[in-house]
Amino acid sequence: MDLHGMAADARQAALYLAATESNVRNLALEKMADVLISRKDQIFEANRLDLETARAEKLAAPLLKRLTFGEEKLTSVTRGLQDLAALPDPLGHTTLARELTEGLKLYRVTCPIGVIGVIFESRPDALVQIASLALKSGNAVLLKGGREALNTNRVLCDALRDAAREAGLPRDFAQLMESREDVTGMLKEDELIDLIIPRGSKAFVRYIMDNSRIPVLGHADGICHVYIDRDADPEKALRVAFDSKVQNVSVCNAMETLLIHRDAAPSVLPDLARELEQAGVTLLGDDAARKLISCEAATEEDWSTEYLDYRLSIRIVDSLEDAIAHINRYGSHHTDCIVTENQASASRFLSAVDSAGVYLNVSTRFADGFVYGFGAEVGIATGKIHARGPMGVEGLTTYKYKLLGSGQTMADMKAGKAEYTHRNLEEVCPL
Amino acid sequence: MDLHGMAADARQAALYLAATESNVRNLALEKMADVLISRKDQIFEANRLDLETARAEKLAAPLLKRLTFGEEKLTSVTRGLQDLAALPDPLGHTTLARELTEGLKLYRVTCPIGVIGVIFESRPDALVQIASLALKSGNAVLLKGGREALNTNRVLCDALRDAAREAGLPRDFAQLMESREDVTGMLKEDELIDLIIPRGSKAFVRYIMDNSRIPVLGHADGICHVYIDRDADPEKALRVAFDSKVQNVSVCNAMETLLIHRDAAPSVLPDLARELEQAGVTLLGDDAARKLISCEAATEEDWSTEYLDYRLSIRIVDSLEDAIAHINRYGSHHTDCIVTENQASASRFLSAVDSAGVYLNVSTRFADGFVYGFGAEVGIATGKIHARGPMGVEGLTTYKYKLLGSGQTMADMKAGKAEYTHRNLEEVCPL
Repeated sequence: MDLHGMAADARQAALYLAATESNVRNLALEKMADVLISRKDQIFEANRLDLETARAEKLAAPLLKRLTFGEEKLTSVTRGLQDLAALPDPLGHTTLARELTEGLKLYRVTCPIGVIGVIFESRPDALVQIASLALKSGNAVLLKGGREALNTNRVLCDALRDAAREAGLPRDFAQLMESREDVTGMLKEDELIDLIIPRGSKAFVRYIMDNSRIPVLGHADGICHVYIDRDADPEKALRVAFDSKVQNVSVCNAMETLLIHRDAAPSVLPDLARELEQAGVTLLGDDAARKLISCEAATEEDWSTEYLDYRLSIRIVDSLEDAIAHINRYGSHHTDCIVTENQASASRFLSAVDSAGVYLNVSTRFADGFVYGFGAEVGIATGKIHARGPMGVEGLTTYKYKLLGSGQTMADMKAGKAEYTHRNLEEVCPL
Repeated sequence: MDLHGMAADARQAALYLAATESNVRNLALEKMADVLISRKDQIFEANRLDLETARAEKLAAPLLKRLTFGEEKLTSVTRGLQDLAALPDPLGHTTLARELTEGLKLYRVTCPIGVIGVIFESRPDALVQIASLALKSGNAVLLKGGREALNTNRVLCDALRDAAREAGLPRDFAQLMESREDVTGMLKEDELIDLIIPRGSKAFVRYIMDNSRIPVLGHADGICHVYIDRDADPEKALRVAFDSKVQNVSVCNAMETLLIHRDAAPSVLPDLARELEQAGVTLLGDDAARKLISCEAATEEDWSTEYLDYRLSIRIVDSLEDAIAHINRYGSHHTDCIVTENQASASRFLSAVDSAGVYLNVSTRFADGFVYGFGAEVGIATGKIHARGPMGVEGLTTYKYKLLGSGQTMADMKAGKAEYTHRNLEEVCPL
């Protein structure tokens, strides 16, 4: 089917889902786990085909690992579905209740966004996570995975669609886009698609933004900082900085630049540098850092580079304010951490740093939907509109205003026959 | 100054504002009222100049009225500023508090968006409303008003900037863009500007969306419906439909299409049509409607037309579901109303209609920031991302995640040295 037809079907499915009860959506999630388990041979066989092609095309080992969908992935994916079913319903929450005038009540109630297009990498378990988060939050999704995973994704998507139907929900809540032309087609469907979430390189995200008027939530890149304050506990500083850089270098929440207060640097930097170098990290320092440790010189470009590798740029700053200014200038508004025992400095850092995640004394690696208790995430948003940081089911909801009256007219209000009371109410919307 | 410099100054102002206390921002709003009053002669003189030019250019009477800024507007604008100062602070609210693991607490806290570009019509009081909502919510704004109001806007904007400075806040929280080149320049500043709110025609909003990767919130158009259900109270139906159409035809929340259940039409439509025609409304009906009243025939195009005029399209529907389907197909997701005494029908309509405002037994004209108790509005959003309906100060906020730890590392978590607890807490973020 062409993309326009798929989007139209998704729109119908979304309109249906918006008015469903939580227990039906949760039943569908449980059935998804059952169907995936009952079709596991078919899934593993499809994945074997994908892996065979990938090996023939000489894909790198880490990519092959991500592409693999075996017993272990199946277990974690089905457990994820069951956990998601157990989470509270994100829909139907009354977030504002107000009497506008006598007998006229306004309620703001959470509801699904509608149709969401998601483009993601070659990790088949991502398909299950994204589709299930969408269904939990009452949305329909158009999914485009990496082409390396196409056979696996087809089988997985079919399984999820069939499970939805078994629960009485429309199969078209999830549909697989298979070609680049589908993606290009999707960008034009601004009447049918409400949101696009591209997971990929900064250049790719920008391409999507430049070629569609559909709103885009995505993360451009992750230039995360750890700032070791003058009042840092040296032991915490070492632990947090080391973990932020080394625990996994290839992810968006890994540290790319270390900032250290000039008064803390002499006591902290040499030890930290030694540990990082022993872990295989190449260090690039500014002039002040290179007086304390021997390493390559960092250039202006380093401050805005996301290495995703065993590399780290290091800068000595004169003050907390200089650290904040550096982060707000060069950072990517993802996640930034201060290590300090000084509450005033912590407070200033947390309010002044303009990022989705602002951390005190904890590794930047914690910026993750599972870690935050969101079940999983459809992406990590580095923009400021709608959702920031790891996007779970709440990030996939919006709201509508429900106004319940008994014949009120604006003419009466303008004529002074009734007055605005604007009295906040402690109640949930009855309809 | 060029637009890039203005945007950079706005970014600095926004970073400053993000860390300010509520009482300082409220003081600035009160000072704005004072300064506007003390400079009223200068403001009125500038407005006289604008009106003179507008009359020489033969602007239509309604436009001249909107352009006028006299004692009456001054009073309403200063009262609005004082009301806004009295509203609760939208910033710093903890909307999620959760222990992730022992000693590690996650908080989601509301914060400003940053720098917002707003393009608005030739109504100088809009400048004061937008700039004051921005300041209340800790944001900086770049403002582009209609060129007819340029002299008035300059004096008003200067007054607001000076008042901000008197309260100790950066003047550059508000800056006036004066040319089309400024607007074109703004569209390119996606590193410095977080959001654009264009108020204008659908074509204009789409032009902005097509030419910038900055997120856009705006309302395309307002094709609002009133649906008179089979179980409607005829008297309420008349009142609500009449007010929705006639009270002000030129606004986005006026009704453009009336839907009536076939069982209600014979008793309701003839009376309603008579009243509407007496008020000067031209009616356009479908075949079924034209069997009950004499009027022009509505074409397919009428269902998707925003008249903003004394015109109304009328369609008889066979069922509640047909009414919902019509609205979701032809509407603009702005505001739609059902008139019914049947709670089940009301509930179905409110959950299934995919609009920012879904109303029961009340005129669509109530979709307004002042009416909702938001003080005023920067716009009415018809998209689904971030904010819907009238956008007051809450619509101008986002959030950040603050994570407070004591040296936690991901390596320890992966090694099983600590477990995720994901325990929700009843507390506000202490930092």
